[in-house]
Amino acid sequence: MSSTSDIDSLIELMARLPGLGPRSARRAVLHLIRKRGQLLTPLAGAMQQVAATARECLNCGNVGTSDICDICDSEKRATGELCIVEDVADLWAMERSQVFRGRYHVLGGTLSALDAVGPEELRIPRLLDRVVTEGITEVILALNATVDGMTTAHYIADQLGERVRITSLAQGVPIGGELDYLDDGTISAAMRARKAL
Amino acid sequence: MSSTSDIDSLIELMARLPGLGPRSARRAVLHLIRKRGQLLTPLAGAMQQVAATARECLNCGNVGTSDICDICDSEKRATGELCIVEDVADLWAMERSQVFRGRYHVLGGTLSALDAVGPEELRIPRLLDRVVTEGITEVILALNATVDGMTTAHYIADQLGERVRITSLAQGVPIGGELDYLDDGTISAAMRARKAL
Repeated sequence: MSSTSDIDSLIELMARLPGLGPRSARRAVLHLIRKRGQLLTPLAGAMQQVAATARECLNCGNVGTSDICDICDSEKRATGELCIVEDVADLWAMERSQVFRGRYHVLGGTLSALDAVGPEELRIPRLLDRVVTEGITEVILALNATVDGMTTAHYIADQLGERVRITSLAQGVPIGGELDYLDDGTISAAMRARKAL
Repeated sequence: MSSTSDIDSLIELMARLPGLGPRSARRAVLHLIRKRGQLLTPLAGAMQQVAATARECLNCGNVGTSDICDICDSEKRATGELCIVEDVADLWAMERSQVFRGRYHVLGGTLSALDAVGPEELRIPRLLDRVVTEGITEVILALNATVDGMTTAHYIADQLGERVRITSLAQGVPIGGELDYLDDGTISAAMRARKAL
């Protein structure tokens, strides 16, 4: 590499981001150097800011800039509904859809015998607490439709027992989805859950 | 979005990097927050460092941390060969191949009537100077094999005239390339330039 060490070490760090490899990290760094004023300097500042302020919500596990996140803190969201998600990215995806007005609980992963992830490694004990203390009436399981996600959903349903209503996201054909491109599992699920028009 | 504004503005800035869209920027930012100590803080520091020190080489247009880059500054590379590339990423790609031991000249783009890029917008006048002052004996045109790249190569060859030997990278089948996946132009070029075994 002809560039000197500062630039090399920036490339090396950028290449560790998910979605960027060595080649795209080099491209990104050249782009940053070209747009020093508009992008590189503001980005360095924003990163320092987030490094200083970002923290996990003590209640739900969402990422924010205070000990209790905006959602947990908002009186408007105390609807008695609690949506369980695997990680913060899923919570953000739910929020973008603007369909849910209750609160969330971020597990921080799924149960996995292979990776030795048990209930204590996730935020499951805290979830059981919250259901009681926050007067939750419905727990919505919005876990990924993977084997581990479904195992985790069953475990949580077992633990909660009859105390609350437990629901999960519907499975079926995605909006705009073409049957020809869907896997067999999705088609069977959609067929089994068919509705009268 | 549930995240507060610091995190949002970091996501917004990250999404402006080439190769990252809004979704991968969100993923990258969550990853950064999780790896605050190992990645986020060092990355912020490296960016500030590069923002403060990165500059274009006054001689060749390479990016480095001094007014004259390491390649132009190295006596070992004064071989009389000058390799012309479109941009710094191409220079870095040439350096990785470790096949060329001369110096470079970065044009900063290609001539383009459509985008009103003339010789003055590129580093072409400086190139003509360098050929004389540095005692260049061979100019190697390593421009991209696109229409604009080839137009630019022809223009430079015209300007240099008979003063120096002018060569360009060979065209043909890439190493590991399968004929079935190559475009017609590459196959014709490889056929026309065929060699005795």
